[in-house]
Amino acid sequence: MQFEPRATRNDIVGRLHNSEAFNYGVETWEAYKRGGLSKDLVEEQKKVQEADLLIFQFPLFWFNMPAILKGWMDRVLVQGFAYDLSKAYDGGLLQGKLSLFSFTTGGTKEKYAIRGDIRYLLWPMQHGIMHFCGVKVLEPHICYAPAFVSEEKRKEMLTAWTQRLKTLWKEEPIDCSPDWYFK
Amino acid sequence: MQFEPRATRNDIVGRLHNSEAFNYGVETWEAYKRGGLSKDLVEEQKKVQEADLLIFQFPLFWFNMPAILKGWMDRVLVQGFAYDLSKAYDGGLLQGKLSLFSFTTGGTKEKYAIRGDIRYLLWPMQHGIMHFCGVKVLEPHICYAPAFVSEEKRKEMLTAWTQRLKTLWKEEPIDCSPDWYFK
Repeated sequence: MQFEPRATRNDIVGRLHNSEAFNYGVETWEAYKRGGLSKDLVEEQKKVQEADLLIFQFPLFWFNMPAILKGWMDRVLVQGFAYDLSKAYDGGLLQGKLSLFSFTTGGTKEKYAIRGDIRYLLWPMQHGIMHFCGVKVLEPHICYAPAFVSEEKRKEMLTAWTQRLKTLWKEEPIDCSPDWYFK
Repeated sequence: MQFEPRATRNDIVGRLHNSEAFNYGVETWEAYKRGGLSKDLVEEQKKVQEADLLIFQFPLFWFNMPAILKGWMDRVLVQGFAYDLSKAYDGGLLQGKLSLFSFTTGGTKEKYAIRGDIRYLLWPMQHGIMHFCGVKVLEPHICYAPAFVSEEKRKEMLTAWTQRLKTLWKEEPIDCSPDWYFK
């Protein structure tokens, strides 16, 4: 799937709310309300709406998700759909859903531990995106440096993930407060 | 400029190093060494090479840069050019350069202060990208909620930025340690 990551005027079908000064946030909000978002966004929002659990699987690029996935967040989670004026964090519009960030890294676990903690980089994605939309967050699933470990170790990683998926529904979400990330 | 944010096989011109199992990091590293990166990447790397100071100006999207800019980081800062096996952080290959993240937010300063500190979200971009490449980081420049303040306040923001630019070269880079971000 070659998802478009760039947030542009093309995300709005038809007339703009204010064609004098283009404001992406305002325009997608207005377009959402009148059913005027582009087809790819409507399709993705339908998937989110139907899901009880959102699993984001990706290779960590620069302490973050790759641009194509960041673009999914930028374009799909529009105001009116995922949050609203006074509906954010615990009151976010996607309440009742769970999320899980599952990713592979280039570096080893030790490399991330040298300078700070891997949890530091989870703040913008887990708290700034999912928590903001009212989605609860399960413990992240991190596979460190699969490209540099043995075939046996890679198989263990897959087995561990398979095992976790079996009991995922019984897990308690994390306490998404600054303490979890930084203390 | 409609920069392509997606990291794909198209970033490598000609034959792949390993066509059996595509690894984006390895392939762009090898392509860089043999001068086989796509034209748009070569052009951007040239700009970085010639710059003493990199200013990233953007609207904050989801506690982070928009996907189009994240894609610039993902695709331009390849191994061999920006960092190398044992050349990262203070030893990164872009040593001697300065950077500055300048951005506008949707929410007010108070909104960001309710849950944690705005500095928390600077860690992946400032530390995880720039510091990793050996680039020193100046204090971020943040304009809070320009869409919701008076015309007068907006003009003040522009004046403050103009003023800061005049003496930017005299500024000391921040101490890019976990303490700066989380204490």
